[in-house]
Amino acid sequence: MVKQERALRTREALINSAATVFHRDGFSVASLTAISSLAGVSNGALHFHFASKARLAEAVEDAAAHRLERIVTAHDGAAGNALQLLVDVSHDLARRLTEDVVLRAGFELSRDQVREGGRDLHGQWRRWVGAALERAAGQGVLGEVTPGEVAASVVAATTGFEVLGAQDPAWLSHRTITRFWQLLLPRLAAPPALGGLVAAGSHPVQPGHRGQPGRPR
Amino acid sequence: MVKQERALRTREALINSAATVFHRDGFSVASLTAISSLAGVSNGALHFHFASKARLAEAVEDAAAHRLERIVTAHDGAAGNALQLLVDVSHDLARRLTEDVVLRAGFELSRDQVREGGRDLHGQWRRWVGAALERAAGQGVLGEVTPGEVAASVVAATTGFEVLGAQDPAWLSHRTITRFWQLLLPRLAAPPALGGLVAAGSHPVQPGHRGQPGRPR
Repeated sequence: MVKQERALRTREALINSAATVFHRDGFSVASLTAISSLAGVSNGALHFHFASKARLAEAVEDAAAHRLERIVTAHDGAAGNALQLLVDVSHDLARRLTEDVVLRAGFELSRDQVREGGRDLHGQWRRWVGAALERAAGQGVLGEVTPGEVAASVVAATTGFEVLGAQDPAWLSHRTITRFWQLLLPRLAAPPALGGLVAAGSHPVQPGHRGQPGRPR
Repeated sequence: MVKQERALRTREALINSAATVFHRDGFSVASLTAISSLAGVSNGALHFHFASKARLAEAVEDAAAHRLERIVTAHDGAAGNALQLLVDVSHDLARRLTEDVVLRAGFELSRDQVREGGRDLHGQWRRWVGAALERAAGQGVLGEVTPGEVAASVVAATTGFEVLGAQDPAWLSHRTITRFWQLLLPRLAAPPALGGLVAAGSHPVQPGHRGQPGRPR
């Protein structure tokens, strides 16, 4: 039992180290030795858990996909309507991208055209945004726009914040995401719903986050 | 003279091949032999023109920066106001990103965190978008929004279209970009200016482009 726990911890440490090294050096250049030494384990231990660098990248992407799933389900039911839910989740995702290197590296790996057959985190996000907008339409909180007209632009903007935020966390700051929703919500929301929507997010923000340009990873 | 022309043509062929191989394989993996053989020249000829893979990447980024510059200046003065100019240029940039591998690879290289000291094409685009919005404000065509509030969202969305378009050209299609501006223009434009703005772009579109999901590269 103790042995099994230790194996799980080692596996998790390797996924964290791999995310850090993939983010810093890129998948192609990332060395397995750098990953194992950052995790404080031997190369042998790394190979016991992961047969190749590609398997390690898949594990990072899987972990990131689970975290993305956890972020969207954590908000489910809390927000008043699906448009507010979309706003709240986008704030939470932006914050976590600056704090969580596994989530960050997962999105980067998923964009990598060189590796084949990886997880499609952008697709997962796109499907979720599309479904949230469909729900908002069903709730009558969308105005003159249809979910299909809007989804691509929302996904493109959030992807842009994520990509640009990799080099400068200000792109993922609470202020930047709030301004985006301040711009977009009056176009998206039906007039009776607009007044109740909070572009800054309807959830209390963790101390130190609001107004900060993001945190260094 | 003839010799000089041939040298220029070889240099250009190498830049084109390098863009193709960087786009396909990524900078880190891209092999100089693949690049020279695609250009139809010897490894020696490649090394005569470019001392290293990094120099070749810089040449691709420089060429892409010139093309971006040419795209924005080609529209200057043609559009009625700076907001329409922004719409027209974004359509043109999207189309060219699907057609021109040098422009495409230039943006990809400029995003690459691994290489240091590269050209900042996203910064060049960001500055141009900011300046266009400032001009639009000066012309009185912006509504209740200020350029500073809007610029980041426009840059993020266009960056998202570019990044997502690398894997699926539908993200850069005329239809996708038109929908983005249909969504945003009513929020950006002063009411008297809105009626005169064309979300689909005010320039005639090349045959075969409108409505197509983009072209394979």
